[in-house]
Amino acid sequence: MATTGNLRFGVIGAGRIGKIHAENLATCIPSTEVVTIADVNVESAQDLATRLRVSSAVDDYHAILSDSSIDAVAICSSTDTHAKIIIEAAQAGKHIFCEKPIDFDLAIIDAALEAVEKAGVKLQIGFNRRFDSNFRKARMMIEEGKIGTPHIIRITSRDPAPPSLSYVKASGGMFFDMTIHDFDMARYLSGSEVDEVYTAAGVMVDPGIGEADDVDTAVILLRFANGAIGTIDNSRKAVYGYDQRVEVFGSAGMVQAQNNMPDSDVYYSADGVYSAKPLYFFLERYMESFIAEMKEFARSVQQNTTPPVVGMDGRIPVLMGIAAKKSYLENRPVKLSEIK
Amino acid sequence: MATTGNLRFGVIGAGRIGKIHAENLATCIPSTEVVTIADVNVESAQDLATRLRVSSAVDDYHAILSDSSIDAVAICSSTDTHAKIIIEAAQAGKHIFCEKPIDFDLAIIDAALEAVEKAGVKLQIGFNRRFDSNFRKARMMIEEGKIGTPHIIRITSRDPAPPSLSYVKASGGMFFDMTIHDFDMARYLSGSEVDEVYTAAGVMVDPGIGEADDVDTAVILLRFANGAIGTIDNSRKAVYGYDQRVEVFGSAGMVQAQNNMPDSDVYYSADGVYSAKPLYFFLERYMESFIAEMKEFARSVQQNTTPPVVGMDGRIPVLMGIAAKKSYLENRPVKLSEIK
Amino acid sequence: MATTGNLRFGVIGAGRIGKIHAENLATCIPSTEVVTIADVNVESAQDLATRLRVSSAVDDYHAILSDSSIDAVAICSSTDTHAKIIIEAAQAGKHIFCEKPIDFDLAIIDAALEAVEKAGVKLQIGFNRRFDSNFRKARMMIEEGKIGTPHIIRITSRDPAPPSLSYVKASGGMFFDMTIHDFDMARYLSGSEVDEVYTAAGVMVDPGIGEADDVDTAVILLRFANGAIGTIDNSRKAVYGYDQRVEVFGSAGMVQAQNNMPDSDVYYSADGVYSAKPLYFFLERYMESFIAEMKEFARSVQQNTTPPVVGMDGRIPVLMGIAAKKSYLENRPVKLSEIK
Amino acid sequence: MATTGNLRFGVIGAGRIGKIHAENLATCIPSTEVVTIADVNVESAQDLATRLRVSSAVDDYHAILSDSSIDAVAICSSTDTHAKIIIEAAQAGKHIFCEKPIDFDLAIIDAALEAVEKAGVKLQIGFNRRFDSNFRKARMMIEEGKIGTPHIIRITSRDPAPPSLSYVKASGGMFFDMTIHDFDMARYLSGSEVDEVYTAAGVMVDPGIGEADDVDTAVILLRFANGAIGTIDNSRKAVYGYDQRVEVFGSAGMVQAQNNMPDSDVYYSADGVYSAKPLYFFLERYMESFIAEMKEFARSVQQNTTPPVVGMDGRIPVLMGIAAKKSYLENRPVKLSEIK
Repeated sequence: MATTGNLRFGVIGAGRIGKIHAENLATCIPSTEVVTIADVNVESAQDLATRLRVSSAVDDYHAILSDSSIDAVAICSSTDTHAKIIIEAAQAGKHIFCEKPIDFDLAIIDAALEAVEKAGVKLQIGFNRRFDSNFRKARMMIEEGKIGTPHIIRITSRDPAPPSLSYVKASGGMFFDMTIHDFDMARYLSGSEVDEVYTAAGVMVDPGIGEADDVDTAVILLRFANGAIGTIDNSRKAVYGYDQRVEVFGSAGMVQAQNNMPDSDVYYSADGVYSAKPLYFFLERYMESFIAEMKEFARSVQQNTTPPVVGMDGRIPVLMGIAAKKSYLENRPVKLSEIK
Repeated sequence: MATTGNLRFGVIGAGRIGKIHAENLATCIPSTEVVTIADVNVESAQDLATRLRVSSAVDDYHAILSDSSIDAVAICSSTDTHAKIIIEAAQAGKHIFCEKPIDFDLAIIDAALEAVEKAGVKLQIGFNRRFDSNFRKARMMIEEGKIGTPHIIRITSRDPAPPSLSYVKASGGMFFDMTIHDFDMARYLSGSEVDEVYTAAGVMVDPGIGEADDVDTAVILLRFANGAIGTIDNSRKAVYGYDQRVEVFGSAGMVQAQNNMPDSDVYYSADGVYSAKPLYFFLERYMESFIAEMKEFARSVQQNTTPPVVGMDGRIPVLMGIAAKKSYLENRPVKLSEIK
Repeated sequence: MATTGNLRFGVIGAGRIGKIHAENLATCIPSTEVVTIADVNVESAQDLATRLRVSSAVDDYHAILSDSSIDAVAICSSTDTHAKIIIEAAQAGKHIFCEKPIDFDLAIIDAALEAVEKAGVKLQIGFNRRFDSNFRKARMMIEEGKIGTPHIIRITSRDPAPPSLSYVKASGGMFFDMTIHDFDMARYLSGSEVDEVYTAAGVMVDPGIGEADDVDTAVILLRFANGAIGTIDNSRKAVYGYDQRVEVFGSAGMVQAQNNMPDSDVYYSADGVYSAKPLYFFLERYMESFIAEMKEFARSVQQNTTPPVVGMDGRIPVLMGIAAKKSYLENRPVKLSEIK
Repeated sequence: MATTGNLRFGVIGAGRIGKIHAENLATCIPSTEVVTIADVNVESAQDLATRLRVSSAVDDYHAILSDSSIDAVAICSSTDTHAKIIIEAAQAGKHIFCEKPIDFDLAIIDAALEAVEKAGVKLQIGFNRRFDSNFRKARMMIEEGKIGTPHIIRITSRDPAPPSLSYVKASGGMFFDMTIHDFDMARYLSGSEVDEVYTAAGVMVDPGIGEADDVDTAVILLRFANGAIGTIDNSRKAVYGYDQRVEVFGSAGMVQAQNNMPDSDVYYSADGVYSAKPLYFFLERYMESFIAEMKEFARSVQQNTTPPVVGMDGRIPVLMGIAAKKSYLENRPVKLSEIK
């Protein structure tokens, strides 16, 4: 029995990000509830369900799709299943929140977006950083004209430690796994598309990453359609913690979104002045944004409005990743129009 | 039926702070649950219960005390009822979390503490700031010897706006309503008792506060038993928001706990460099500490350990408030040993 | 032969502060020059004169007073000679810049000020901190009404290391040697006189200072005629360096003058985030203010205007020091009107 | 007559930078003096000489070269005369401090460096930023291994306002006039040469700059021989003032050199928290570095050591400018080995 007015969710995938979304939907957002949790590892689903007092846990997500009391799904399974589940969920009439990336293949993404369009359901992609207070306020200042015309946009995104090599191998590579958030941020902050990218990258953190045919350090230069120039700099390992900053410089000013710290203490000693390192990783740094994106998704379904991050917002960063990788391999600027 | 192992609470008082504790107990702390909410205004209790999916709402808290399935109470009612409810709850064998202050009268406080002692229940007083990340880390640094012997301790505590005059009249005055937290912080940070206080205070914010026989601005000088000197500065109105800082200076260094901000953005314009104001008020600033104090209380009950803020920690700041007020009225340093 | 328009100085005293003023007058201020340097230790005078290409060095400052080509003197000799030299210099028609304090005895100060008045010469007292960029800008903001009516004024002034015990014994004590600058700052920032002081002080840094009948740590509470409340906190030893801050809180805002650092580098490591300690001591921290105060003095002579720090500005902080010490000894608030 | 031991300078060029160097040599550095100032506009030379009490002012710098009492020259004339004067000064046996750039033509630079080598005189190029406290400390931290192996180096260099169009036309273009300092900083910080550059640039500030065949905004991506990746970002107009920052990220940490501010005040109002803008322009920002570089030059002559910025340090940034411009015109990465 549904509590009147609550949006009823099935959560597909009970891994790291599935746990976050399930908990937020179950406990932090008053207008949503979780009805069923699915995971191929049914024990994970069951453990999570018990902890969140969710009544049903299954191993096959089709049980969610065929449950007519469920309004929406949160797709948190492995990337290679995203597009397939989107298509099935759309056909089942479920609204869809899907983790990024939709897929690494543009044709597969297009098929998924087409299914969504045809079914007329909502689709929101999990680019949570748009909902972070720092970046959102920076974007607002830009929209309000406080920095004037953007000239130079800098995005810094460095992880505290590299993932396991097995993760690296399955991730699609740094450009698709990590930089994809920064590609989205570039579009979000600038309010413009990127025309051309040029990538300088290398293996500086772990030779194993190179052996896995990936890079761990990169600087990507972006040329925006509106004339601005951007840079993204990535590293798989910042010893001081998760480094998540942006800077937008324009004709009327500059806004910097700096790192968030776990406390505001400053210690003065005979050796120097010390303060805290940035919040360690994305769970700590972006917890509020995970809640906020889901609230916005629920609202767009409940009020029948366009979600804040639509299907094309999921497709374009993948295209940018393909272009960035091509630029890296060929050591030349690559236009996005060259891809496909 | 109790979920095995969960600590079952009755919440007494469904006002501003009661809402916070009820919500935290019901949704944020895995090992606790709320069974009944009581408020003399039963509609408030009912609204809160509905929102939190709590099954029972009553107008008379005695229903909580007589419910043998309930382990503990959170006393969030008006100050004049605290001591009476503590006594009754202790006699009913309930563990007690009580908001500050216990009372304005030391004899009444003593009677309450005696009842608690006799019943052998746990009592924790709601000095939540001890659980704030900034202050807790500062205290840890002091304990670790990083600042050496404390010499000068400064506590700044300024509200963003004065309360209503009706609140002022019922509050016991600024020293008991506002400074009481700072008296606790002084003891917490220093690890020492205060021997003597000297108060300079006045009415600078609102003449109505003066007409209500209270002050709205104060600087209180403290002499600690361990030799350190402290200051507390209070204002009922800081136009830039809630100002909550401490600074401890000692023989080996200094630690400052600075304000927390809602974001980390910095805006550079032709007019200057701007950043965010502090988090507006205690709900925003101390939300994590409200959760943390209740987790610690639950743990002390479940593990049968001494609560982190005991009854005497509730009594002494009231004594300090009496001394501070006497010092203000007589314009002279007042020893705490003069009181009672 | 005087360079046309240059103000010709005799510098009396070639110790630490005399060296600073002589060098500034000789090399940094275009409209001034140093003609003669006097010191009872004539070798010190000679060394300084050689280094600064000053033609004359003498052991008896009367040679300066009797040199009709000299317009002004900078009195940088030991405190016990200040008043006497002021009187003689005034009688010789010289304009006078005198280091603080004029004397520790109010009657002696009054005699000196009377001589100055009678002679109609300019007298400026060396309260250099008024000319520091941070404090000056804070004062300007207050004058412009940006903080509204001042309610709470906090002055922090801590030295990096205690002076030698021989210096302590000759200095008149911490209130006259160190706090005197803060008493001046309190008047400068508030634009108000202080009515009453209350002092808490002790020996926490070095027992030898206590044996010399002085204190090394103090917090002084000030009540201003305009209703504001202030604190000064002093320590003879801050292990992290020279700590020189003020904070003025008022009805419309707050201004903080924070410490100056030798560089703007921030280092992020696995252990924390580090930045530089404050500039070590007054020579580094206040060099610009020493130049600025002397420029202002030269301007007041050349343009025949009132100097920015007049004789009474030299007298009142001494009075405050006497009251602060009395308060310390008697452990009670002392009105300035009680003194003399 | 020379003061024994003083290094005697002729200053060639009494424009903006000539005035700075002449004043520093004459008044701020104890071991140097200025004997003669030359400028084709002899009145400028004379005015400066009078102000600094320098005895001789001439219109033809050959008078300096033929004065055997002069040890060294500071070449501050227009860029097109630098190489010619270097050659003549070397032949006259004078040690040479020369402003950057030596020339825009590598062959001409090589001829000048050859003459210096042949004559065995010292040559130091005016890359003053190496002597700035912030950048020097950053470099020291890198040398000490505190950041480990450098991975990503970011240099931000933005002027507060564009120069006049006539200056733009004579300047050789932004890469040679402005970025040249950043090319030097890239080499200085990394301790490595740059192998390849890729430039994205445009006209965003003033169309007149585009009409003068120059750009006003650029981001240049650098690949260092040691594997690190760098970016330089330049703008001719930052409305908030002179923006001079670097960030070096490596395997063991990160160092940021942030902007210097004219004061340390922070103002909290109902509208936000404000602090000062960066120091306006290079005269304010780099004054100490101008003094420090000249002190180092004097020391290298007096102690017969290698100057801290030698001829090749003047040549390579010009080469980098040529490569950066070629990259901009051809929109492709350009190896430095392609040039000449």
